[in-house]
Amino acid sequence: MKTAFCVFLTAFCFIASFTLMAQPSKRPRDYGIRFGVIPTGARNAITDVPGVRVGQVTLLEGQRVRTGVTAILPHEGNLFQEKCPAAIYIGNGFGKLAGYTQVEELGTLETPIVLTNTLGVPTAADAVIDYTLAQPGNEQVRSLNPVVGETNDGGLNDIRSRPVTKQHVLEAIQKAKTGAVEEGNVGAGTGTVCFGFKGGIGTASRKLPVSLGGYTVGVLVQTNFGGVLQIAGVPVGVELGKFSFREKLDGSCMMVVLTDAPLDARNLKRLAKRAFMGMARTGGIASNGSGDYVIAVSTANRIPNTSKSSIDEMKLLRNDDASPCFMAAIEATEEAIINSLFAARSMTTSNGYEVTQLPVERVVELLKKAGQLKQ
Amino acid sequence: MKTAFCVFLTAFCFIASFTLMAQPSKRPRDYGIRFGVIPTGARNAITDVPGVRVGQVTLLEGQRVRTGVTAILPHEGNLFQEKCPAAIYIGNGFGKLAGYTQVEELGTLETPIVLTNTLGVPTAADAVIDYTLAQPGNEQVRSLNPVVGETNDGGLNDIRSRPVTKQHVLEAIQKAKTGAVEEGNVGAGTGTVCFGFKGGIGTASRKLPVSLGGYTVGVLVQTNFGGVLQIAGVPVGVELGKFSFREKLDGSCMMVVLTDAPLDARNLKRLAKRAFMGMARTGGIASNGSGDYVIAVSTANRIPNTSKSSIDEMKLLRNDDASPCFMAAIEATEEAIINSLFAARSMTTSNGYEVTQLPVERVVELLKKAGQLKQ
Amino acid sequence: MKTAFCVFLTAFCFIASFTLMAQPSKRPRDYGIRFGVIPTGARNAITDVPGVRVGQVTLLEGQRVRTGVTAILPHEGNLFQEKCPAAIYIGNGFGKLAGYTQVEELGTLETPIVLTNTLGVPTAADAVIDYTLAQPGNEQVRSLNPVVGETNDGGLNDIRSRPVTKQHVLEAIQKAKTGAVEEGNVGAGTGTVCFGFKGGIGTASRKLPVSLGGYTVGVLVQTNFGGVLQIAGVPVGVELGKFSFREKLDGSCMMVVLTDAPLDARNLKRLAKRAFMGMARTGGIASNGSGDYVIAVSTANRIPNTSKSSIDEMKLLRNDDASPCFMAAIEATEEAIINSLFAARSMTTSNGYEVTQLPVERVVELLKKAGQLKQ
Amino acid sequence: MKTAFCVFLTAFCFIASFTLMAQPSKRPRDYGIRFGVIPTGARNAITDVPGVRVGQVTLLEGQRVRTGVTAILPHEGNLFQEKCPAAIYIGNGFGKLAGYTQVEELGTLETPIVLTNTLGVPTAADAVIDYTLAQPGNEQVRSLNPVVGETNDGGLNDIRSRPVTKQHVLEAIQKAKTGAVEEGNVGAGTGTVCFGFKGGIGTASRKLPVSLGGYTVGVLVQTNFGGVLQIAGVPVGVELGKFSFREKLDGSCMMVVLTDAPLDARNLKRLAKRAFMGMARTGGIASNGSGDYVIAVSTANRIPNTSKSSIDEMKLLRNDDASPCFMAAIEATEEAIINSLFAARSMTTSNGYEVTQLPVERVVELLKKAGQLKQ
Repeated sequence: MKTAFCVFLTAFCFIASFTLMAQPSKRPRDYGIRFGVIPTGARNAITDVPGVRVGQVTLLEGQRVRTGVTAILPHEGNLFQEKCPAAIYIGNGFGKLAGYTQVEELGTLETPIVLTNTLGVPTAADAVIDYTLAQPGNEQVRSLNPVVGETNDGGLNDIRSRPVTKQHVLEAIQKAKTGAVEEGNVGAGTGTVCFGFKGGIGTASRKLPVSLGGYTVGVLVQTNFGGVLQIAGVPVGVELGKFSFREKLDGSCMMVVLTDAPLDARNLKRLAKRAFMGMARTGGIASNGSGDYVIAVSTANRIPNTSKSSIDEMKLLRNDDASPCFMAAIEATEEAIINSLFAARSMTTSNGYEVTQLPVERVVELLKKAGQLKQ
Repeated sequence: MKTAFCVFLTAFCFIASFTLMAQPSKRPRDYGIRFGVIPTGARNAITDVPGVRVGQVTLLEGQRVRTGVTAILPHEGNLFQEKCPAAIYIGNGFGKLAGYTQVEELGTLETPIVLTNTLGVPTAADAVIDYTLAQPGNEQVRSLNPVVGETNDGGLNDIRSRPVTKQHVLEAIQKAKTGAVEEGNVGAGTGTVCFGFKGGIGTASRKLPVSLGGYTVGVLVQTNFGGVLQIAGVPVGVELGKFSFREKLDGSCMMVVLTDAPLDARNLKRLAKRAFMGMARTGGIASNGSGDYVIAVSTANRIPNTSKSSIDEMKLLRNDDASPCFMAAIEATEEAIINSLFAARSMTTSNGYEVTQLPVERVVELLKKAGQLKQ
Repeated sequence: MKTAFCVFLTAFCFIASFTLMAQPSKRPRDYGIRFGVIPTGARNAITDVPGVRVGQVTLLEGQRVRTGVTAILPHEGNLFQEKCPAAIYIGNGFGKLAGYTQVEELGTLETPIVLTNTLGVPTAADAVIDYTLAQPGNEQVRSLNPVVGETNDGGLNDIRSRPVTKQHVLEAIQKAKTGAVEEGNVGAGTGTVCFGFKGGIGTASRKLPVSLGGYTVGVLVQTNFGGVLQIAGVPVGVELGKFSFREKLDGSCMMVVLTDAPLDARNLKRLAKRAFMGMARTGGIASNGSGDYVIAVSTANRIPNTSKSSIDEMKLLRNDDASPCFMAAIEATEEAIINSLFAARSMTTSNGYEVTQLPVERVVELLKKAGQLKQ
Repeated sequence: MKTAFCVFLTAFCFIASFTLMAQPSKRPRDYGIRFGVIPTGARNAITDVPGVRVGQVTLLEGQRVRTGVTAILPHEGNLFQEKCPAAIYIGNGFGKLAGYTQVEELGTLETPIVLTNTLGVPTAADAVIDYTLAQPGNEQVRSLNPVVGETNDGGLNDIRSRPVTKQHVLEAIQKAKTGAVEEGNVGAGTGTVCFGFKGGIGTASRKLPVSLGGYTVGVLVQTNFGGVLQIAGVPVGVELGKFSFREKLDGSCMMVVLTDAPLDARNLKRLAKRAFMGMARTGGIASNGSGDYVIAVSTANRIPNTSKSSIDEMKLLRNDDASPCFMAAIEATEEAIINSLFAARSMTTSNGYEVTQLPVERVVELLKKAGQLKQ
């Protein structure tokens, strides 16, 4: 019964995913808003890190299903056979992220990173297993560690109906591409709520000057958390009389940080923690019910799954030289979160629950008054 | 195609699970072997902790499918509505356990604990979601944290075929009962290998004297790891010329510790670590590819999901008085692991891979010679 | 030789500590600057938490010695005999804090908290041992865990000369009192540098409305870190062209959080992490060389060192109700850091190194322009 | 007054340290006792790792002072300028080890490792600062992280009198040498108690076959903990009717692991955890009051304090190939602990408290009966 239902659902969702194609909205930077002091990468997106690809599937069905999948692939190769140094930092662990303990132990990522809704994590993890087992070269793989993050879109999405299927996840992985990344009500951000406004997917990047290594740090976020919104320092939440201090509601902020800086797992964990600091700068408070996780991955060194040698030769950035990357992660995360708010659009449920989008014009006015618009 | 296949598979497996009903074998204690100095509980099983229930489903299909599901339920009530203080200790994190980070953050367990094979974790987690959403009283639940552990039975089981279905998991939960716990090639231990011998499910318990609190500590293990086997101190692995120093193979030991001692999450984490020490006493080395996890749960205090009061009143065992519980966890884990080896039976795959059971008579002889059999 | 020298030094320092008595400067709030949305406690100081006492000794000797000691005592009793639930969060662990591992393991604080300079930690810890061994009731104590934090004032202070003596530390503990807390160039903040300006000691507090529990959260900081200063959201560091992005220099921010909310060690660790988020809101980046630690202590439950019962009865705030405390810790930490900058005064070394104080009038003007001064 | 007293004390102690020179006793291996399956290094000592040096100072004064200092230096160079990858694992954190958090954050050791008694940690840390600041090449050092471990010898030693001085610590560092390491009542093990018998310093090593990398793993322990003693698996504690289940007493086991295997901090932490498993194999239970710490250091890669390049080139052992090192650490730690018991000698305090040495002949007989003596 449930399975049959799912087939129909899938059909609907595929249609939905074709019709989405939202108009790209102006990003905060287009208004002259600045976050920090380091220049952005070319697209101000996680895909500014060479080789990084993003794929998203959006599920919209009437006023009931609003969820989706966002997949991030650190490089073009077989991720299981060519693992990436990785770490996960937990800001607040009220969440169901899959894959934490093995990343922590071994310091590597061996699958795409998938983001979806809370109750969709097992389905997404199962799909990542399907994907990896089926990849050419992985015929002998009998153990793998899917990394799947989530936030809870159960306000706008009928989450108990579990609309995300393995096909959706596989589709998101398969359509992953370099270049522009759609923001707002898309993929895993389709039904999320942030600071009481409509949240979603956001992305940003920083590119360090050559004198500091020339590395790129890219961030993608799925914003679904509360606090008192602050944009480029301006207390927008207070000014608009809108605090979302939702102590009783599950929220979450998933943050994914990619970099081509040659960091090992230890320094990636430190980098990941700085993304959490970036979230703090937007007014997030990591409330009890918030699942705030940062997954950080470096594309600079690859760890082969098997090797003739028992030794891996690594070039690693020295601790002393990691601070500029830290600052880049803070700035890019802050901006990615605000980007998600600027791109998201109002949404209503069939039972009348409405989440409005950030009133961008009013916000821009507030920032202008505060002297925070640059020409 | 895959789905259709699964339906057939399920049918086969149900048959298999009816025909299992193995003869209970003699346990090490029946031979006079002793582990440590604290007396056991009545059944020398995890179910000696009042209210704890265990349910197992075994999947055996020809010489291809040998896997299963073991479910542990800490109390008879609605676990989501009446959470238990809990902690998870990671001995070696090469594993895919679901649910770690939320247990770590909030210090509670809110679902049954399910054990299965590595690639079955998402399916099992999904089934736990099904189970919990469907429980009376949980109609408003939109976020929950399934705790699922695993070991990799990919040597004896065609793990890539993913034979475990949600129905198997739900069945294991539903048939959970107090009383005797089957050991050996059963449930999640059906296809496991330990110290080069056939491993499986094992259980044991300790009951502290009243002067030390009178608490019970019960342990259930899924044994699938390597090292140099030692039984009650006797270096059986060396004597039998059988080391399983399997540095390149995924192994794992899942350990579940239940107690009625009033420990909070912090002291449960310490208790969990002692179970890992018990594993060390059997000769386990926690090799790189081993996923050694301990889930520890106390049934003494329950944390209601919702409460009129913002305060929970707790009676907690003082740090100073926790050591006897620690010792009990060490002893019970050591014994549970050896129990699994005594109960497990030889198994062969269709392509000729054979894992023989522990040669119990030979082992008993070795222990007798070493003076380790008590009358 | 060294000892003789120390005697002289001590004499000088005692004189210095008598002559300090700085004029209390206007605090940010006096100018109409606001941090967050929760009201402050009566004094906007860590001592708003009932029973909490602070004592400080300032060492100023010519242009060479600028350091000191700040002691925080959670309650008036014998701290060893009546321990407090406690936790320590490490934002960035490039630091020498003493006492971390036992607090982590046992969840309790059993001594005063002492802050001083990096190389003075062992001396301070030794003094805390002296103090505790000598306390009436502690005659049988043979093991105790001094908690001592530090930042590195080696720019303005001749830190290699190790001017802090045990007497200074004992003096700070002995003069601890409730009531007003001196801020700026005082105690452990005497020689610190923050965002390129003169840093120091700062304090602030929040008092939750009765509907949210009515708890007080008080914070004291020793500010010695870098980043891009932001005050109530206004990017002061950028506006003043003053970034202190000191990637090669040891910095640190010690944060101490006291509360009368009944939190256990687990939730105190979460509270501590929110103080780190407060630091992030000031523009701190936790650079590689920064030692950013938060010590969080609750005064609501006391754990007796010895007890006739093996059970402690505790009333504990539920996870769900902890979020307002989290927000309070963020806000109070942000404000305490800015308070330290407003109170600190310019300082020069004999070899010409000068650290100027925050140009408060210019800052106030910037905030006024940004609309961030409330009437 | 105290200082004057210390001068006398120092004089006495120096005399004591000259007169110690105990007869080297037969080690377990000399009796045919075997621990595990990997061959030892040439001396079966931590100094089998090339370049590692150990220095010890023993303080014996009548029946009142029985304590001391043991220093381990990973290489002959300036440790601050040429740091070693390092990690610390905490088995049970009821201890006062200095230096944990920075090793955890940066993954490096930059000073000698010093072991002493609990209340002597600050003095020892201060001495390590003296030592490091005074080393040629360190003239500009203003921040350093002394690593000092301890166990509590307060049963046999008048620990409250704080007999260890900075001079003792400096002497231990200065006399550190390669070659044989004295065991038993020496250095930091002078007054320790283990399983109710006299404990002390012990050491052992393992050398992997060339096919597994040919690496050496050396261990040094300071044994002061309880449980139910087991020697090469034989339950000696039970047989002798001597359990030291000292739940109310502070104990501790400090373990130091050195290796020339090219492990980074992450894998060193895993290695350190295996030493704790070795302790478990001796019957240790890590009781509440035990401070069980493992410090693991690799000499294979050195991290220069300053570098012209922002990149360190490292050759690192692959995760997959780390398991033999893990096994070596388990075996060497087990043996080092038993070595300490065989070497230690009975001791009495002036108030009649006596700790007897392990009855070695009786133990050998028990092991012979159990078939555990090899020819």
